[in-house]
Amino acid sequence: MLALTILGNNSAIPAFDRFPTAQVLQTQEDAYLIDCGEGTQMQMAKYKIKRSKISHIFISHLHGDHYFGLPGLLNSMSLLGRTQDLHLHAPAALEQIIQLQMDAASTVLSYKLYFHALGDEQEIMNNSRMSVTSFRTQHRIDCWGFLFREKKNPRKIDAERIKGFDIPASFYERLQKGEDYTTKKGTIIPNEEVTIAAPAAKSYGYCADTIYDETLVEKIRAVDLLYHETTYLKGNEQKAAARFHSTTLQAASIAEKAAVKKLLIGHFSAKYELLDEFLTEACSVFANTELALEGICYKI
Amino acid sequence: MLALTILGNNSAIPAFDRFPTAQVLQTQEDAYLIDCGEGTQMQMAKYKIKRSKISHIFISHLHGDHYFGLPGLLNSMSLLGRTQDLHLHAPAALEQIIQLQMDAASTVLSYKLYFHALGDEQEIMNNSRMSVTSFRTQHRIDCWGFLFREKKNPRKIDAERIKGFDIPASFYERLQKGEDYTTKKGTIIPNEEVTIAAPAAKSYGYCADTIYDETLVEKIRAVDLLYHETTYLKGNEQKAAARFHSTTLQAASIAEKAAVKKLLIGHFSAKYELLDEFLTEACSVFANTELALEGICYKI
Repeated sequence: MLALTILGNNSAIPAFDRFPTAQVLQTQEDAYLIDCGEGTQMQMAKYKIKRSKISHIFISHLHGDHYFGLPGLLNSMSLLGRTQDLHLHAPAALEQIIQLQMDAASTVLSYKLYFHALGDEQEIMNNSRMSVTSFRTQHRIDCWGFLFREKKNPRKIDAERIKGFDIPASFYERLQKGEDYTTKKGTIIPNEEVTIAAPAAKSYGYCADTIYDETLVEKIRAVDLLYHETTYLKGNEQKAAARFHSTTLQAASIAEKAAVKKLLIGHFSAKYELLDEFLTEACSVFANTELALEGICYKI
Repeated sequence: MLALTILGNNSAIPAFDRFPTAQVLQTQEDAYLIDCGEGTQMQMAKYKIKRSKISHIFISHLHGDHYFGLPGLLNSMSLLGRTQDLHLHAPAALEQIIQLQMDAASTVLSYKLYFHALGDEQEIMNNSRMSVTSFRTQHRIDCWGFLFREKKNPRKIDAERIKGFDIPASFYERLQKGEDYTTKKGTIIPNEEVTIAAPAAKSYGYCADTIYDETLVEKIRAVDLLYHETTYLKGNEQKAAARFHSTTLQAASIAEKAAVKKLLIGHFSAKYELLDEFLTEACSVFANTELALEGICYKI
């Protein structure tokens, strides 16, 4: 299971107590930070997200509302004595910006920060539980989206039922992978008799900032949760296109074409105080839509 | 009259809802931003400080808790269509950091940003109402304090009482400067008869981050309000010295030696949740002390 917590859902200018973009995707073991607008570390404290759990940070592009909170977060992690490695996946130009800031402050981080420059579509992270792929979105400057795919989880040993069979513990790992067990006498014990299926592997597609772009459809097809920006309400297609952003109907249309399970919309323009219309409009095209609201944890 | 609003009073790591350092000094006409920690633009919105009124920004040093909110503020001012000039007084290295960030985002500001690198003790701003002088403080990296001195305000014409005299309006400006008027017949009309004294010119000394340093005393002698950091409570002199910070008793001792009218203390370490003891300890040396509390406007 994945859980996505929204720390900021606003576009460029913070307004109506809405913070700029930041999200945390959590599994039972890991936490991944996606974009890091100004104030992210304060939002993490407010919503009880542990800074220490973050192992990888993904920055979609170098508009300030997606990364101006990063230097402060990196600093605070160091001041708090972090020792575990941190991996930063971001546009190449960020490396020098951070280095200059560190140099100006005579800062030596307490942990190792590995910088990974984003390129074209490629797998950028892969551990035993998750793989992350980056893909291009169309925005005013270079911008990347991220596709998170949980790996298929191993089946669980059914501790009660396995007692009835004489299966050596050394075989348990193969049981978890789905194998049947054959006894010395040749009797087959079907895997399902002694294991429990793991929850299905889930997927999350984050489309960052983007103009309406149908080539995204194949990149995030059929994900369990899709985040697509909706800076503007419908009727603002021209303004959205001019600024390389999207409207409610455009986001919902991508979700529908990609047959995703659920759509989450955010990156609301500071000109809107109320958000109800965003939901109404998007739902008219794709019913299973929710607003990305700060502090809310969306279970995937 | 000067009015100082505290937007952030915490040291490096934001904690207990306390934001890092930022202050706004306002006269009737102008607003000056002093340091700009992460979240300053959100705090300005919260405490109804108009971004558009800020004409000059002063950054004491390049530890992140004193400037990581600046790029976001500069961006937002531009997105809101600011056209008036903005002057930034800061350590030289900040210019390149900001330029890199602007370049990475393909940002062209809507207004002119003038960068003024801080040097040694010198007057760095001077208009008809205020002069600002920078001075060095002793910190881990180059750091500056700022002394704000209001200019002597012109006297006000007493509209009611001046009616009783035949003084030409062309002489009013000289009356405001304090001159008496001599009639054609040689009668002297004393200035005090037809003008009202302006409020006294006030002064504010901002000592930024600093180790205990008695050379500061002459730099801010007898100011109406002194801000001196107190990262730690008494008994932490060694830790304070090692980190180039000050304790309550040290801040109060500087205030006493400099015979300032009032002391404001802030930059509290994230290890303290409650602040009462800071006040008690400082007051034991210098009675007229107040805590720098967020959102509070201190009249000078």
